Amino acid sequence: MLYPNKIQKSQTKSINYSNRGMFLESLINESNQYYQEKDIALIFKKPTPIGISEAIYTDRGRVIKNGYFKAPSTLDYNGIYKGKYIEFEAKETKSTTSFPLANFHEHQLKYLKRVLQHGGICFVIISMNNCIYLLKGEDLVFFIENNSRKSIPLDYLKEKGFVILEKYNPPLDYLKVVDQVYFERN
Amino acid sequence: MLYPNKIQKSQTKSINYSNRGMFLESLINESNQYYQEKDIALIFKKPTPIGISEAIYTDRGRVIKNGYFKAPSTLDYNGIYKGKYIEFEAKETKSTTSFPLANFHEHQLKYLKRVLQHGGICFVIISMNNCIYLLKGEDLVFFIENNSRKSIPLDYLKEKGFVILEKYNPPLDYLKVVDQVYFERN
Repeated sequence: MLYPNKIQKSQTKSINYSNRGMFLESLINESNQYYQEKDIALIFKKPTPIGISEAIYTDRGRVIKNGYFKAPSTLDYNGIYKGKYIEFEAKETKSTTSFPLANFHEHQLKYLKRVLQHGGICFVIISMNNCIYLLKGEDLVFFIENNSRKSIPLDYLKEKGFVILEKYNPPLDYLKVVDQVYFERN
Repeated sequence: MLYPNKIQKSQTKSINYSNRGMFLESLINESNQYYQEKDIALIFKKPTPIGISEAIYTDRGRVIKNGYFKAPSTLDYNGIYKGKYIEFEAKETKSTTSFPLANFHEHQLKYLKRVLQHGGICFVIISMNNCIYLLKGEDLVFFIENNSRKSIPLDYLKEKGFVILEKYNPPLDYLKVVDQVYFERN
């Protein structure tokens, strides 16, 4: 019972990634924390935007009594790595053959394109078929603009994406792949 | 009544900036929206992090019935400008002689320093004495590390800071000052 988190993760795995969405998010959050502690990068999940329809003042401060979640118009994570602006979204699908583009809001895709135009590093992390891929924003945009399909076939991910391996610490070392894709190739 | 927002702003001004904190925030938010629309920069105020102690499911989706505001550990605004990572905080004070450093959380100052170390553009916008200054993160850190004072005297702001003028659109063109300070000098 030395590493209860890790043990729980294995259990999640053994029940066939049914909670994969949160699982991927927790892998990324833990990795971001590792990157911060080791002073490798400053990358955070953005807080979910909240609308507040009722709030009261208490001795603990302002308390929300009625709030709702707003749809995000940007991507989930952003920050700085090696002096570069970085922004990405993480998604999982239970489908084993293709990744449904409906997973993204339309304004998120427009926004992703704008981040690229402004010179940011922008990608998506997709968990599918027991494998985690990094797909460059450019390749996502290319697919969408050159296809009428509403989902990305696994083959496209295998061809254009980069596999991110799970390991002990950080649990998902996606910046290693970012290094290979964005820094070592130039 | 063509520009009710603008008129309201003038009224806020005429009541001696009593609501200056929100006023500065609204100037910056409007300017950020202008920058987005003109495709000049992608800079957003981060949503306030919320802790949720009670939520229920309704036909409108998940609704928060008990939530509280968490203290921010990073700065208020971040984004990308001319390919660079940018992050800043905006603060106002009613004091006319010095800016109290208690306006920043200690972890915010540590974080600011780390953003600089990672190569980001990082500064604070301070509204004081009916004037709005941009103070480079480096100059803020220098002051704190070389002074035992708990507030920044107005003279230091006048010497090291850069005045941001209010205008019509965008209402607070702080990126013009960013250009002068960070881009044109190099």
